[in-house]
Amino acid sequence: MRTGDSTTVDVPESSAVPKGKATVVTVAKQKGGWKRGVAIFDFILRLGAIVAALAAASTMGTSGETLPFFTQFFQFQANYNDLPTFQFFVIAMAIVAGYLVLSLPFSIVSIVRPHAIGPRLLLLILDTVALTLNTSAAAAAAAIVYLAHNGNSNTNWLAICQQFGGFCQKVSGAVVASFVSVVVFIFLILLSALAIRRV
Amino acid sequence: MRTGDSTTVDVPESSAVPKGKATVVTVAKQKGGWKRGVAIFDFILRLGAIVAALAAASTMGTSGETLPFFTQFFQFQANYNDLPTFQFFVIAMAIVAGYLVLSLPFSIVSIVRPHAIGPRLLLLILDTVALTLNTSAAAAAAAIVYLAHNGNSNTNWLAICQQFGGFCQKVSGAVVASFVSVVVFIFLILLSALAIRRV
Repeated sequence: MRTGDSTTVDVPESSAVPKGKATVVTVAKQKGGWKRGVAIFDFILRLGAIVAALAAASTMGTSGETLPFFTQFFQFQANYNDLPTFQFFVIAMAIVAGYLVLSLPFSIVSIVRPHAIGPRLLLLILDTVALTLNTSAAAAAAAIVYLAHNGNSNTNWLAICQQFGGFCQKVSGAVVASFVSVVVFIFLILLSALAIRRV
Repeated sequence: MRTGDSTTVDVPESSAVPKGKATVVTVAKQKGGWKRGVAIFDFILRLGAIVAALAAASTMGTSGETLPFFTQFFQFQANYNDLPTFQFFVIAMAIVAGYLVLSLPFSIVSIVRPHAIGPRLLLLILDTVALTLNTSAAAAAAAIVYLAHNGNSNTNWLAICQQFGGFCQKVSGAVVASFVSVVVFIFLILLSALAIRRV
């Protein structure tokens, strides 16, 4: 009778516990499904942003042109090092790309645990700072590239792109790539904000 | 007996309902207290950002200097209209200031209803876009101001601030004000992100 009692007590217990667990897991999966999807999309967007930021930094970093004619004392060449704004651009985009690589593990954590708020909040805060750095680099370089293309007659700043066409093309490409990365950052912040709110 | 019964039933009912309501309200106030504080701080920060953005736009918009000497055909003067980047700066900062004024009602709504997620999410998304516009205007203008102060020998762009000192001072002030507004925007986004997450 004792063993019979214990078995009759044990059986409903052991069957009740997995059932309860199963329902909890199912509810969590149903509620966390779109959050996991958002986290995966976040990861993919980050990979795209890394490519764009690295392309911007490397294109600007390798830009440089030496004209095929020179005088006795002077050789005409243009380099990104000639303009402090372009130096800032290379450094800032390298920092942004480095941050994006370091942020990948946190993005993976929020794929594995879709309901964890901590990593998403951290990413949102750091993304906002990185967005500001990225935008400032892109806009400052864009202002100088515009000047290099068109010049300004009021201040007597001549357009240098007529001489250094290849240099200007590379630099413009780098600016476009950095603006692509800005747009990706805006989407990343919006995704984090959507995923962070209470469901 | 009937009236006695009805009174004995009525008294605990009428006393129980207000008690239940009171506890619910107290719990809601305790949970929503810091959210209301965050919303009030958000409102104050917005007022500060409006002042900074308006100061930046108006300082840049009224910048201009005419030198006291002139030739027969030419009068030396500098104006923000001479540089397209500064025109963009004035327009962008005016848009940012206008957006901030229009966002005040939503900020008030989230003071009145600290638990409403909708207005905060809307503000976070629009703040991110406004931050990008603000940062790009500030960085582009900063790049040109740097050039105006220091010039660039590699591209033969001469510093114009030696002639137009007053103009350069006003323009630099406008750039500083716009960067203040950028910093305030970063804090606004962080506050929204903290308040939006589930407690």
